Amino acid sequence: MPRADAKDASRRNQKWAARRESIIDTSARLFAANGYHATGINELCEANELGKGALYHYIGSKEELLAAIHDRVMDEVMAGADRVAEAGGTPPDQLTMLGGELLDVIHRYPDHVWVFLHEFPALTGERAATFRERRREYERRVEAVLRAGVESGEFRPLDPWLTARAWLGMHNYTYLWLKPGGETSARDVAQPFAEIFTRGILGSPQGAE
Amino acid sequence: MPRADAKDASRRNQKWAARRESIIDTSARLFAANGYHATGINELCEANELGKGALYHYIGSKEELLAAIHDRVMDEVMAGADRVAEAGGTPPDQLTMLGGELLDVIHRYPDHVWVFLHEFPALTGERAATFRERRREYERRVEAVLRAGVESGEFRPLDPWLTARAWLGMHNYTYLWLKPGGETSARDVAQPFAEIFTRGILGSPQGAE
Repeated sequence: MPRADAKDASRRNQKWAARRESIIDTSARLFAANGYHATGINELCEANELGKGALYHYIGSKEELLAAIHDRVMDEVMAGADRVAEAGGTPPDQLTMLGGELLDVIHRYPDHVWVFLHEFPALTGERAATFRERRREYERRVEAVLRAGVESGEFRPLDPWLTARAWLGMHNYTYLWLKPGGETSARDVAQPFAEIFTRGILGSPQGAE
Repeated sequence: MPRADAKDASRRNQKWAARRESIIDTSARLFAANGYHATGINELCEANELGKGALYHYIGSKEELLAAIHDRVMDEVMAGADRVAEAGGTPPDQLTMLGGELLDVIHRYPDHVWVFLHEFPALTGERAATFRERRREYERRVEAVLRAGVESGEFRPLDPWLTARAWLGMHNYTYLWLKPGGETSARDVAQPFAEIFTRGILGSPQGAE
């Protein structure tokens, strides 16, 4: 392909990807407000100002759109977990940073997270399996930090699986009231939550249980 | 009314109420599996082995059925909170007992709780207001225990509203994996969760922060 044509093609791809992203965001708002099943293709077309053919050109199918909303959340959550792993630090530090990153995603993507937490059972087959695996991957990161803290003695002996569920619940459940433009910022929540949880699982300073 | 007739009427009322309860349970299962909006009256009739007229005789409307599912959860949750208040004890004891009662409801009513947590936005008008008020009443119980603990010095200074949300999230979120017949019982979860949370908010023994 001549260079000018390749440049054009790349520009077209970028434009297509940007439009697709904006469709995902608009549709997340619709699904969050009215539910995935109750939202028809016609409403998606209207909200996105696209005809049916054009909409399918970007999203393939309604379920693919739902999967893309889930991926948007997981991409952000995993990027946060990667930043935390790169930053290093003690297990208590890691857990605190993971909480801050997670609350930040919940705060920035209220519609996507609502859809993520409410509509995941609508994913089928391969898409459901991919979603479960990605979510499990994140859970394993949290469990690994807890396990490392138990091994180092910084956390008291605990069940990493169950403790991760306590931690995930405490953070994820903020989606009900932690909203952009609200009185409370993600940072306002992250610090007191980290304090509760870390104190809750700290090993005793003498190493005695 | 002659005595025999009154007895008959009371028996008919009891029978009606029992049938209504079983319709609520069956419908909760359907709504949890397929979503409130996606479940039609015909499916409700079929699952409950009733004609449309008979179904409406028991439930009035689909939204009334949804409200009844929410009420079932709130009735149980508030009964638990009342038992805890009657039992008395220190704020840490109260919080531990509240957690045990809440997890027990989540464990015993997985379908109702799923519907409660996912479909509450479908309630409208008076029913939505009643639901919000009942939920808020329970939240205030949790906040009151936290406030009492701060006042007594058993809990460190904390924001009762935000801390209640951390506690509620940690417990409510178990609805995703705490199921009847599963490996984990409500009791298995209640004790470690209480330990995390109570240690997380305890005041220092010397009263120093």
